[in-house]
Amino acid sequence: MAAVVNANGSDAGKTDGEQTMLMPPPPTNPMVTPLLTDLYQFTMAYAYWKAGKHQDRAVFDLYFRKNPFGGEYTVFGGLEECIRFLANFKFEENEIAFLRSVMPTCEDGFFQYLQAIDCAKVEVYAIPEGSVVFPKVPLMRIEGPVAVVQLLETPFVNLVNYASLVTTNAARHRFVAGKSRTLLEFGLRRAQGPDGGISASRYCYMGGFDATSNVAAGRLFGIPLRGTHSHAFVSSYMGLDEIVDKALLSHDGLNMCEDFISLVRSWLIKLQRANSLHSTFGETNQSELAAFTSYALAFPNSFLALVDTYDVMKSGLPNFCAVALALSDLGYKAIGIRLDSGDLAYLSIEVRKFFCAIEKEFGVPNFGKMNITASNDLNEETIDALNKQGHEIDNFGIGTYLVTCYAQAALGCVFKLVEINNQPRIKLSEDVTKVSIPCKKRCYRLYGREGYPLVDIMTGNNEPPPKVGERILCRHPFIESKRAYVVPQHVEELLKCYSPGDSDKPRAELPSLREIRERCMHHLEQMRPDHMRILNPTPYKVSVSAKLYDFIHFLWLNEAPVGELQ
Amino acid sequence: MAAVVNANGSDAGKTDGEQTMLMPPPPTNPMVTPLLTDLYQFTMAYAYWKAGKHQDRAVFDLYFRKNPFGGEYTVFGGLEECIRFLANFKFEENEIAFLRSVMPTCEDGFFQYLQAIDCAKVEVYAIPEGSVVFPKVPLMRIEGPVAVVQLLETPFVNLVNYASLVTTNAARHRFVAGKSRTLLEFGLRRAQGPDGGISASRYCYMGGFDATSNVAAGRLFGIPLRGTHSHAFVSSYMGLDEIVDKALLSHDGLNMCEDFISLVRSWLIKLQRANSLHSTFGETNQSELAAFTSYALAFPNSFLALVDTYDVMKSGLPNFCAVALALSDLGYKAIGIRLDSGDLAYLSIEVRKFFCAIEKEFGVPNFGKMNITASNDLNEETIDALNKQGHEIDNFGIGTYLVTCYAQAALGCVFKLVEINNQPRIKLSEDVTKVSIPCKKRCYRLYGREGYPLVDIMTGNNEPPPKVGERILCRHPFIESKRAYVVPQHVEELLKCYSPGDSDKPRAELPSLREIRERCMHHLEQMRPDHMRILNPTPYKVSVSAKLYDFIHFLWLNEAPVGELQ
Repeated sequence: MAAVVNANGSDAGKTDGEQTMLMPPPPTNPMVTPLLTDLYQFTMAYAYWKAGKHQDRAVFDLYFRKNPFGGEYTVFGGLEECIRFLANFKFEENEIAFLRSVMPTCEDGFFQYLQAIDCAKVEVYAIPEGSVVFPKVPLMRIEGPVAVVQLLETPFVNLVNYASLVTTNAARHRFVAGKSRTLLEFGLRRAQGPDGGISASRYCYMGGFDATSNVAAGRLFGIPLRGTHSHAFVSSYMGLDEIVDKALLSHDGLNMCEDFISLVRSWLIKLQRANSLHSTFGETNQSELAAFTSYALAFPNSFLALVDTYDVMKSGLPNFCAVALALSDLGYKAIGIRLDSGDLAYLSIEVRKFFCAIEKEFGVPNFGKMNITASNDLNEETIDALNKQGHEIDNFGIGTYLVTCYAQAALGCVFKLVEINNQPRIKLSEDVTKVSIPCKKRCYRLYGREGYPLVDIMTGNNEPPPKVGERILCRHPFIESKRAYVVPQHVEELLKCYSPGDSDKPRAELPSLREIRERCMHHLEQMRPDHMRILNPTPYKVSVSAKLYDFIHFLWLNEAPVGELQ
Repeated sequence: MAAVVNANGSDAGKTDGEQTMLMPPPPTNPMVTPLLTDLYQFTMAYAYWKAGKHQDRAVFDLYFRKNPFGGEYTVFGGLEECIRFLANFKFEENEIAFLRSVMPTCEDGFFQYLQAIDCAKVEVYAIPEGSVVFPKVPLMRIEGPVAVVQLLETPFVNLVNYASLVTTNAARHRFVAGKSRTLLEFGLRRAQGPDGGISASRYCYMGGFDATSNVAAGRLFGIPLRGTHSHAFVSSYMGLDEIVDKALLSHDGLNMCEDFISLVRSWLIKLQRANSLHSTFGETNQSELAAFTSYALAFPNSFLALVDTYDVMKSGLPNFCAVALALSDLGYKAIGIRLDSGDLAYLSIEVRKFFCAIEKEFGVPNFGKMNITASNDLNEETIDALNKQGHEIDNFGIGTYLVTCYAQAALGCVFKLVEINNQPRIKLSEDVTKVSIPCKKRCYRLYGREGYPLVDIMTGNNEPPPKVGERILCRHPFIESKRAYVVPQHVEELLKCYSPGDSDKPRAELPSLREIRERCMHHLEQMRPDHMRILNPTPYKVSVSAKLYDFIHFLWLNEAPVGELQ
């Protein structure tokens, strides 16, 4: 593919140091300030402050209730952005001035308090980013002064929601496309705003995509970049006479072809006349031929052409092949073609046949193996349908459906109070899926003999951890009859400390995007296949310890509306 | 509603100068740079440059093909962001260095060219932001050197796509809710990333919302802010003994109530005993009562409580009323309640009855008229269903479905070449909806006798404009049989010049967000009602002049795949 490069530059000779120089750290988005929150976080903070409750030590869980896209798994994204937000949390004076204007009846002392706060006393525990995660299990547990932690609710949920959703969407596309295909994220123009586009590129790469078209994201995160040309490029040429400089040096640098256009033309005639190709094309479109020739003169090492501007079989494909064969004469190897409309399964098969016939007819090695990219409104379903029909597509370029998460545009993360001043709190609801799991908790993933994760279990913070080889009762948090004994072969504690507050706990490191991507790929491969399948996947089990189960139900009875008992 | 304020501060005495000081201009998002584009824009630019075609004068149209949300209208948003992008368009040296590393085979002269370019030669014509717009008619026409204008494609489409989509979504919510309801945008936590949230607030306000919960957006754009408290606030209180300072000065400042809690308690007992209320509640939840009391002590002037943490009718509502009546004793007027779960139609009606019964029983004027806000997963459909059932909701708080555009997460704007070097270009497709309308065009809206817009018409750039009172043939661009004569009572030219390039055309002004919002409201009101209705709306007609029609079909024949003619 043309300009197929790693964002750090494709030169193998480059040192790591040079690469780092080219890739700056993600810039601080000036919109991501402590004001990026809901007004009610400030009105609540004031009410806490007035009541002298603002320093009360609170524990909140950030979690989601249901896996997206009709699936049974989710990939956790957005943690690094939350931790960076926390580290930079500080009000500017002009922000305080704005808040004063918004809340004119509030006492001065409150604004002095706001001006002074930071997140030094906030502890954050989280599942590592890129992990496969499940409903109800906290992705993050945030502890600290209630007024401060409340101010984090909105930005944290905002930063995790879309990141996790689009990472999961990318992972689902990777799953359905299979490991051998190349997945390209082409969503910037359809993303929800500029940093929607940048986040999409970052998290699609995390979820298993290979490259993006988004140059800014390539630069920020070191994601490989891809791109060739558009339909407009093709129709911007009127004909071959527009090309002034027709010379092309051969790949080995030894021969100068003075008239590359004539070489292309001669190949086009050979293609028309070759009986073995069963060619049905007459005169191909000359705008298109000029555009392809011009593009090949600019990128002879990486010629890839979009062949559907006029008609794939009657114009785009023969034009492409004529240019590719002319390049081949000069020792260059073309990359392949892109299809952006029509019946992609059928066209890709016809294109492959044509490539193979040329390889045979003209004895051009590997011409049949050239790359076919498809890119027209693809999504998980259409890729699945293409696979079922059979196709010859090597690369999928995916935009709108991927980055907007069209199939389900929101994950619905929540941020719930589970403890305050060491008192467990529960949020009840008539809808049992909305009842929160109270208490500061520890969370474990239990693995079975075959290496698959079997179940996640939440326990009270002070319960002894589950042990390898021991029989552990895992209970559904709300349904009494659902329970199972598990003997784990491996136990993994899920929540790591990413912000120790004023404790002396060691701080878990924030890995690079590439490392997070590897974690994600590894986690996805580790899952039992029936949890992953598209149709009717088996739900992965999420449980609580026997002790936590009893405590939840004790609280539930005590907190339920008292009026009911009359 | 608590803390109901304009973002500029609610103090009527403030001068405009002070307001301006508090509201900074929108910051430049460091992610919105010329690198925020697809890689292929750079590879094409290089191919143009190599071919000496980069300065060719090109004309592109930015338009969409289909109205979103099953409707027959769209509101145009995002123009100001495009114009700001254009004005700041300039490559930094480190950006050029990055591009060199991405395209290592490109010649040095190309990067020198990139380093030097800006948009001084780019002309932009656009329909004013906030206008009601229709498929196929260019929202923007961009003219300039082909290589530069191509670089603008991705950011412009990105900036217009989501802005127009979410403005339209907001306008649709306003239409179904009716003028008399207050619409609050509560979407920040579910938006697609931080500036997804900020854009959502900006464009929902443009589309007719009254306020947002998003403090950062309130500050940036002067949008009124709203917010009170969450369920976590309620469950963070254990009981009334947590409230240390129980004193509250009366509204007139003349009397100090030393024990507001006792006053609240006495009202709760009165409520329980009042036969006329048909009270069915026993002991209400004490956490909730404490939280409400604490909130009222902090915001006695704007007390609004979320009443569904435990049970609306048995706990939340009586607790709220006890606090509101105690406030009333001290001369304060509570705002009302918020419902965030359950059957909103039923609950709002029951709450209203209870309020009215209290007004009657205790002679508290206007108690029955208190505000009822609803906010649980609302969208266009649920509001329509609530209206059909009947309800007593005054304010709707809308989040997820609004800001993610859940019903349709992308608009699908395109950016098509229509002319290069004064040669018209057409993009053909087997799908007729994807055929572009060639030529540099002028666009007009023709109004009928009743003041409604009748039809939009596109003409060639040099055709004389349609005149009031003259009979004009309006043709469907592609379907021969669809045509009509129109005699307009008023003719409006749609495209204004926002960037004159090196021409001396006057530059149209960028109005304030509030002015754009007014344009939008005015345009929506002006539309014939059958275009606006939710079920089976009538499509608004978009046409071309007879001359342009003929020319399109002449080009079509000439550009169609030549192979077909064999």
